[in-house]
Amino acid sequence: MFRVWQSVRHKSTTAVIKEINDVQKLYMNHPWSPGSTFFYPEGAHVFGKLVSFMKAQMTRYGFQEVVTPQLYRKELWQTSGHWDHYRDDMFGVCDGHDTDKIEYSLKPMNCPGHCLLFASRERSFRELPVRYSDFSSLHRNEASGALQGLTRVRRFHQDDGHIFCRPDQVAEEIERSIALVDTVYKVFGLEYTMLLSTRPEDFMGERALWDEAEDGLRKAIEASAKPVVINEGDGAFYGPKIDFVVKDNLGKSHQAATIQLDFQLPRNFGLTYDDKTGAGVPVIVHRAVLGSVERFMALLMDHYSGKWPFWLNPRQVVVIPVSDAHAEYADQVAERLRNFRTNDGAAPLSEQTYAVEVYKQSEPLSGRLKRATELSASFVVVVGDREVQDGTISVRERGVRKSVTMTVDDLKELFVELTANYAP
Amino acid sequence: MFRVWQSVRHKSTTAVIKEINDVQKLYMNHPWSPGSTFFYPEGAHVFGKLVSFMKAQMTRYGFQEVVTPQLYRKELWQTSGHWDHYRDDMFGVCDGHDTDKIEYSLKPMNCPGHCLLFASRERSFRELPVRYSDFSSLHRNEASGALQGLTRVRRFHQDDGHIFCRPDQVAEEIERSIALVDTVYKVFGLEYTMLLSTRPEDFMGERALWDEAEDGLRKAIEASAKPVVINEGDGAFYGPKIDFVVKDNLGKSHQAATIQLDFQLPRNFGLTYDDKTGAGVPVIVHRAVLGSVERFMALLMDHYSGKWPFWLNPRQVVVIPVSDAHAEYADQVAERLRNFRTNDGAAPLSEQTYAVEVYKQSEPLSGRLKRATELSASFVVVVGDREVQDGTISVRERGVRKSVTMTVDDLKELFVELTANYAP
Repeated sequence: MFRVWQSVRHKSTTAVIKEINDVQKLYMNHPWSPGSTFFYPEGAHVFGKLVSFMKAQMTRYGFQEVVTPQLYRKELWQTSGHWDHYRDDMFGVCDGHDTDKIEYSLKPMNCPGHCLLFASRERSFRELPVRYSDFSSLHRNEASGALQGLTRVRRFHQDDGHIFCRPDQVAEEIERSIALVDTVYKVFGLEYTMLLSTRPEDFMGERALWDEAEDGLRKAIEASAKPVVINEGDGAFYGPKIDFVVKDNLGKSHQAATIQLDFQLPRNFGLTYDDKTGAGVPVIVHRAVLGSVERFMALLMDHYSGKWPFWLNPRQVVVIPVSDAHAEYADQVAERLRNFRTNDGAAPLSEQTYAVEVYKQSEPLSGRLKRATELSASFVVVVGDREVQDGTISVRERGVRKSVTMTVDDLKELFVELTANYAP
Repeated sequence: MFRVWQSVRHKSTTAVIKEINDVQKLYMNHPWSPGSTFFYPEGAHVFGKLVSFMKAQMTRYGFQEVVTPQLYRKELWQTSGHWDHYRDDMFGVCDGHDTDKIEYSLKPMNCPGHCLLFASRERSFRELPVRYSDFSSLHRNEASGALQGLTRVRRFHQDDGHIFCRPDQVAEEIERSIALVDTVYKVFGLEYTMLLSTRPEDFMGERALWDEAEDGLRKAIEASAKPVVINEGDGAFYGPKIDFVVKDNLGKSHQAATIQLDFQLPRNFGLTYDDKTGAGVPVIVHRAVLGSVERFMALLMDHYSGKWPFWLNPRQVVVIPVSDAHAEYADQVAERLRNFRTNDGAAPLSEQTYAVEVYKQSEPLSGRLKRATELSASFVVVVGDREVQDGTISVRERGVRKSVTMTVDDLKELFVELTANYAP
């Protein structure tokens, strides 16, 4: 993906995120790896759910995941054009340490690797569109002064996708891409505006191709009936694009998704497909919905003020035994809520498990309740004499004052529902 | 993980894998990224299923996934000891390309990063064991002459895990680790022998710690009632280990899983936990079950002779319309078998989807049937006049001569069953 990186930044967002992370301990940084995020288990949980979520959505939209290398020789970057225009932002890599000769660069984007996959065999016009997705880590050599939390990093992951299509398929692919963004942003309750950037003066390629593509973009945007701002002449030299500017629920703007057409890269790699009448050159659509998963996670921390919806929450349930006498029952409840048994044969791939912790420390009940609330657990389950006797649990939902007595199965049914609907 | 890399290699394995890949097109290599695998969608499908499978199993065994950086400064490798003993096998990384100064190394293993996570806050004895899992890509600078397919690579992924535990917890953790390996290898129908390597002459650490640990290893192995070979004095200087040598169904031996104790690394990083009586030093258990996912995939290609079990197969179903008149019905059947609708709202995370292709090419039926068989599709579904009329499908299972007429729902029920049980 090209340029999903700039953003309208607010100082306060950074402060909010830091404050949440101080409490929730989602990630850390370390001077021995500046600009790379270390995700603690709780942060990795959110990160992993976001990636799984995007993989599920992209499958529906016809993407096929691929796995591609991170190190490439200069020849690749010369072919793609990055060598001339992007070299300073890439990390040079040597063979070993007893050398001063750079042999490779660490990839800052996935597109050139995807071009090699596409080019590795003959392609018929019938095969197109080919849609590759890739969730590999990427490295960009940001200036060390700018590094910060999850938002200005050197290593990150994109929910990246490249569509190789015929010119006559561009309009439909754009329409589908907008629909995918819309589907995803609805789940998060994020409003957005589209920014359409059109042909600049120093464009490359045929004017007719640009006209057809821009026509397709406009029609797709119209069909979506969403707000749009048009930046005439502001497209990249290699193609027009749509940027999505998101308003979070605090009214702040963030740039996240991009749909970028590219007429240049397929030519640089000599990509073709066999057409009925000869050979055609595919158009590449670079698109990302979340953009950088790390940055989007920061946006969501801010958007939800740290109160993760159930399906994303790394602390879905805290179980608190009133006293030591209830600890064993608390463990049994937790095991059932987790929805798996430790060491019990092979877990099926379809198994949905839940993040459940038991607070057994010899701290007063009030202190443990307070901690569960501070950590924004979705549900706090308290078990005392009555619950042990009745085989029930006392459940308090986050943001609700009153506890409700129910069975473990009742609560698990609620989990299934909340997860399936991505309830906010 | 240390040293999961050596193997007993057979030339014929390489030949078998190449032959399968020539037909199935799972992966490719490219001279612009020597030693790094490009997975086509079909190969990425198998790779992804193996990773998801291991994540599900490791959750059951109490592992928490973390995400850690790939670039680290020299200080990390000096601390871990890799700088002196492993530097030549690491790739040096520069800031940009206009420099001859190496600033970082690309990680060849995850353990030092996990030590930083562990060390980043105070740990109580109650918190232990802490079990981190990590599926990050790793790079090792293998000599270019040795590079080959999936088995001798420079970039690979491990189903990596590190357990930080108290000395008194070692025995139980080893027992659990063996149980996990056993659970996983049973799924693949792989027999194995354990190789226990004990204290060498130039060991480090206290003799009592070694004795206790080796005692734990022996007991755990005995409890498993599995065959074992003991290599007295063949352990690493930093701890004893168990290697698992797998016999595939062709009788070939492969080394895959390792459980390696480490008394040294925790000391190098100054790791401690608060004990009731002061501060303790944790033991680290490095363990991998598949080892390198890429190498294990090669082992499985060989083991299954390319006939993937349903849950792993990137070609689960091929739907073939007898003639053009049945193409629309074939598409409807395929959509139902895939178990998702294109562009239809947000896909729930629990959605199980299937890999279904329709062969519509204007090739004779026999040619399409032959291709589906060559590609080892688990099921071939043929639809003609009778099927369209009756709303049924004609299903042939791989390796079975006779077709069976059934409904789409019947077949989907079978999919659920085969997947849930990891049927071979």
